[in-house]
Amino acid sequence: MSSTATLGADSDSISRLGEPDRASLPADIGELYQANHDDNWIRALAVNPDTARRFGAYFASLFSSGRGARLSLAERELIAVIVSAENGCGLCEIHHTIALGEQIDDHARARRIALDHHLAPLSPREEALAAFAVKVTRAPKTVSGDDFRSLRAAGLDDADILEALETSSWFNHTNRIFISLGVKPDDKFFAR
Amino acid sequence: MSSTATLGADSDSISRLGEPDRASLPADIGELYQANHDDNWIRALAVNPDTARRFGAYFASLFSSGRGARLSLAERELIAVIVSAENGCGLCEIHHTIALGEQIDDHARARRIALDHHLAPLSPREEALAAFAVKVTRAPKTVSGDDFRSLRAAGLDDADILEALETSSWFNHTNRIFISLGVKPDDKFFAR
Amino acid sequence: MSSTATLGADSDSISRLGEPDRASLPADIGELYQANHDDNWIRALAVNPDTARRFGAYFASLFSSGRGARLSLAERELIAVIVSAENGCGLCEIHHTIALGEQIDDHARARRIALDHHLAPLSPREEALAAFAVKVTRAPKTVSGDDFRSLRAAGLDDADILEALETSSWFNHTNRIFISLGVKPDDKFFAR
Amino acid sequence: MSSTATLGADSDSISRLGEPDRASLPADIGELYQANHDDNWIRALAVNPDTARRFGAYFASLFSSGRGARLSLAERELIAVIVSAENGCGLCEIHHTIALGEQIDDHARARRIALDHHLAPLSPREEALAAFAVKVTRAPKTVSGDDFRSLRAAGLDDADILEALETSSWFNHTNRIFISLGVKPDDKFFAR
Amino acid sequence: MSSTATLGADSDSISRLGEPDRASLPADIGELYQANHDDNWIRALAVNPDTARRFGAYFASLFSSGRGARLSLAERELIAVIVSAENGCGLCEIHHTIALGEQIDDHARARRIALDHHLAPLSPREEALAAFAVKVTRAPKTVSGDDFRSLRAAGLDDADILEALETSSWFNHTNRIFISLGVKPDDKFFAR
Amino acid sequence: MSSTATLGADSDSISRLGEPDRASLPADIGELYQANHDDNWIRALAVNPDTARRFGAYFASLFSSGRGARLSLAERELIAVIVSAENGCGLCEIHHTIALGEQIDDHARARRIALDHHLAPLSPREEALAAFAVKVTRAPKTVSGDDFRSLRAAGLDDADILEALETSSWFNHTNRIFISLGVKPDDKFFAR
Repeated sequence: MSSTATLGADSDSISRLGEPDRASLPADIGELYQANHDDNWIRALAVNPDTARRFGAYFASLFSSGRGARLSLAERELIAVIVSAENGCGLCEIHHTIALGEQIDDHARARRIALDHHLAPLSPREEALAAFAVKVTRAPKTVSGDDFRSLRAAGLDDADILEALETSSWFNHTNRIFISLGVKPDDKFFAR
Repeated sequence: MSSTATLGADSDSISRLGEPDRASLPADIGELYQANHDDNWIRALAVNPDTARRFGAYFASLFSSGRGARLSLAERELIAVIVSAENGCGLCEIHHTIALGEQIDDHARARRIALDHHLAPLSPREEALAAFAVKVTRAPKTVSGDDFRSLRAAGLDDADILEALETSSWFNHTNRIFISLGVKPDDKFFAR
Repeated sequence: MSSTATLGADSDSISRLGEPDRASLPADIGELYQANHDDNWIRALAVNPDTARRFGAYFASLFSSGRGARLSLAERELIAVIVSAENGCGLCEIHHTIALGEQIDDHARARRIALDHHLAPLSPREEALAAFAVKVTRAPKTVSGDDFRSLRAAGLDDADILEALETSSWFNHTNRIFISLGVKPDDKFFAR
Repeated sequence: MSSTATLGADSDSISRLGEPDRASLPADIGELYQANHDDNWIRALAVNPDTARRFGAYFASLFSSGRGARLSLAERELIAVIVSAENGCGLCEIHHTIALGEQIDDHARARRIALDHHLAPLSPREEALAAFAVKVTRAPKTVSGDDFRSLRAAGLDDADILEALETSSWFNHTNRIFISLGVKPDDKFFAR
Repeated sequence: MSSTATLGADSDSISRLGEPDRASLPADIGELYQANHDDNWIRALAVNPDTARRFGAYFASLFSSGRGARLSLAERELIAVIVSAENGCGLCEIHHTIALGEQIDDHARARRIALDHHLAPLSPREEALAAFAVKVTRAPKTVSGDDFRSLRAAGLDDADILEALETSSWFNHTNRIFISLGVKPDDKFFAR
Repeated sequence: MSSTATLGADSDSISRLGEPDRASLPADIGELYQANHDDNWIRALAVNPDTARRFGAYFASLFSSGRGARLSLAERELIAVIVSAENGCGLCEIHHTIALGEQIDDHARARRIALDHHLAPLSPREEALAAFAVKVTRAPKTVSGDDFRSLRAAGLDDADILEALETSSWFNHTNRIFISLGVKPDDKFFAR
């Protein structure tokens, strides 16, 4: 597969590594494009198809709305927004702010949370998730048994806590990929 | 599934969330245990079986020695060691230091790299990978086109670079999970 | 003047110090309210009328569109957005993102800049202003003659540079006041 | 107005932007020079007369000894010294250390406070102001209702607290201007 | 004395300043070599014989096993390991990890402590020493009377505490010397 | 030896560990007191006589004006002032600012350097020493061969460089001891 790589963040390229030639995409990558609305992020990952496959599969499972999930999808989107804002991944922040707005059917509140979650109205359970996500992101070595006790006090059991931790940690992976690639936020995110 | 959770890092528990009751493990989780030598990390993740499944599948693919991989397995282990040391995930550091030693058939050199990669003898390509992994970990917002040019100068093409980035970012996910859970390094790592 | 102080950020209060009783406002403070559209920030400052007066006068002069100003109003709003995002003052960020959108008649571009100015299309002169504003905010002790030379190369003379520096520094003042007070962003900012 | 700009911090220039030609000063700027003893800082700001005007007016009001002020002038000078030392603005630190010494009629104590306020004898009210000023300077996002409660316990009402916050924040503005300009401390500060 | 200085960390040189010509060593420096097993660190310091003498004498006294010492030698080695790991001085970390292993006759436990002392089994007294050593290293300005009270509660008297502080601080000296010189860890450290 | 320990930094005690009973001092410690003018720092160290002995001997050798020294005493005092200001050890800063003033027979210039060495007139050799001392203090892991080349370009040979490094590192030891102990600056430092 040839890659039309360009490096300038000020160019028309969607990322520092460009994107693959669409005509020569493997069939399953084409399906990943469709499932993800041809978004810039999946096109940027397709420069290495195995990366796109692994990443797409993990993300689809972690954010599925079906059986197996422990936190509500709105709670997982809340963590996504807060970690992405903390790390300064604008692409991830706006993607998940809109997704959170859809889940809670309140885009204004979602934007308030993205702007500064300390000033947004959060439930005690949401506050516990937000505080944990920030700590795992910024200073994981300071996480202690007390943090787990706070989450239990907010009603989470052990499997819930592990999913909250996994979701928080996951965005430290995705944020670094998209920040480093310099993937540009899609125009559609600014159309509303 | 019931979880025998204990919180004290000084207890006999392998993690702050304990581990699931082995008798009631789903069959595929039992296979994950086997594939990963019953290591503490997979037992700690099994508190939430879906987390263990997603994590295990991604890790197995990213560290496969088969077709599709772009970097050598030794290079991926090098990145694993350097990012884990940078983040202070002792469990991950020692796990991958031993794996790196096996890949390069030189455990002394692997331990030198884990101890301080600045003082270890690295090839220019290894140095480029190490510098990139550290930057992605510590300050991803400062990654620029220059970093990609350095990797190209060291012989990597775009798909290779994305795999190097993915591997570096991935350990910012795994390190945070195991640091936050407080998973104890297995005794076997200290037996040699 | 009596102050209806409340402390909870989760309460109906607009700030940690509340706001003054509107019936007993001095006349000139009432005019400041009007001139600033009754926004939360001016009501929060009015707890100490002299603070509101000083702050209002400086801000009105620095952001005047009349004679005396060196940078365009759009450039001053650009600096306001970038410094406020850097410091994490959500109230200031959204206030000036909307003002920037009005100045450049392109709200989508303004939101792109607020989200991550590294990925937004900026002119070389805007990039020089943005880089300077970030450095003055984060690490002023590292500012050197080279930074002034970059601004001159982008077309600024000495009086322009001092205005750019003053504007960048000013938001390190205003951001700290509104962050510390916990002033909530007005509902109108989320209505569009 | 022509500006005799020089860039070397090691030159005879008082700042990286030089100072305006004294013969062509507007009349009101000449008065600002007089009111501020021809100090380097006002001459450096006069490169942009509007900056000098705005800055001079705010500073004169905030540090007035007349009606309207809530904290004693000594308390405002204490905050000025502590914030300036924290930010490493030597010019501001020595200027306000001497001013504090004059207010409390004890230059040795003022220099002790500037050197390390943790080891200087402070009253509980002064300690509360010092701790708040340091927090607002270093980590404003961590300010919480508890900090306001501590100030109230030290005897401050809401208007007093806002003045303490305004004074602390203000020096994050002035410090950045003078650090970035590289304004040299006047010889007179070292003559005693 | 002539010095065979080379600068490349990738060369055969043991440090960025090389080492002195062995034939022309002063007699007492030759004895220092012998007392310290010809280790790289003493050879690197001998580039300035007075540095080697001062350093050797202080170190020999601080780590003597004889009369005068307040903490056990194992406790002093514990502090050495923890501070060196904190600062990232690989040479110092491995040197003292082996020495600690010998003192406690348990190399596996010593390596567990070096890898991540939060996950190693420490006694309450050891935990108090470890926490103090980390704080003195990272943020000495935050040390307060509370830290001294914790050490007293763990059974240390004032002279013991000062020795713990001295040992912790000392490795902030030695770590900086060996990190800056880039002294390579001796091969023998990796032979086991 | 009994110790009159008091903990309050606001008490009459000279340090958080107090000082030993003067009547029961060993003879050689009494001589150390005399040699160091009964300064607070030596009295604070005497709580553990072996600490006082080791520390006093190293310091006397490193700051001797006799044979063996490579840098001038003024250059060593310059490093002492800059590192102590960087670490925020007020006691060490003022002690060595006065000593530097005596060595260069210019107390005003010494105070200018202590206040902000970036704005003080330094020779290129002094600037090279200052930059190196700051880097060794703040971020030793970033020291590279380039830093050694800069020092050589400023006229230092290898033994000189090691003495500059040793002096810079030493104050990271002494600063931590006196900061952690909270030793109060002697009154005499403020009498001039």
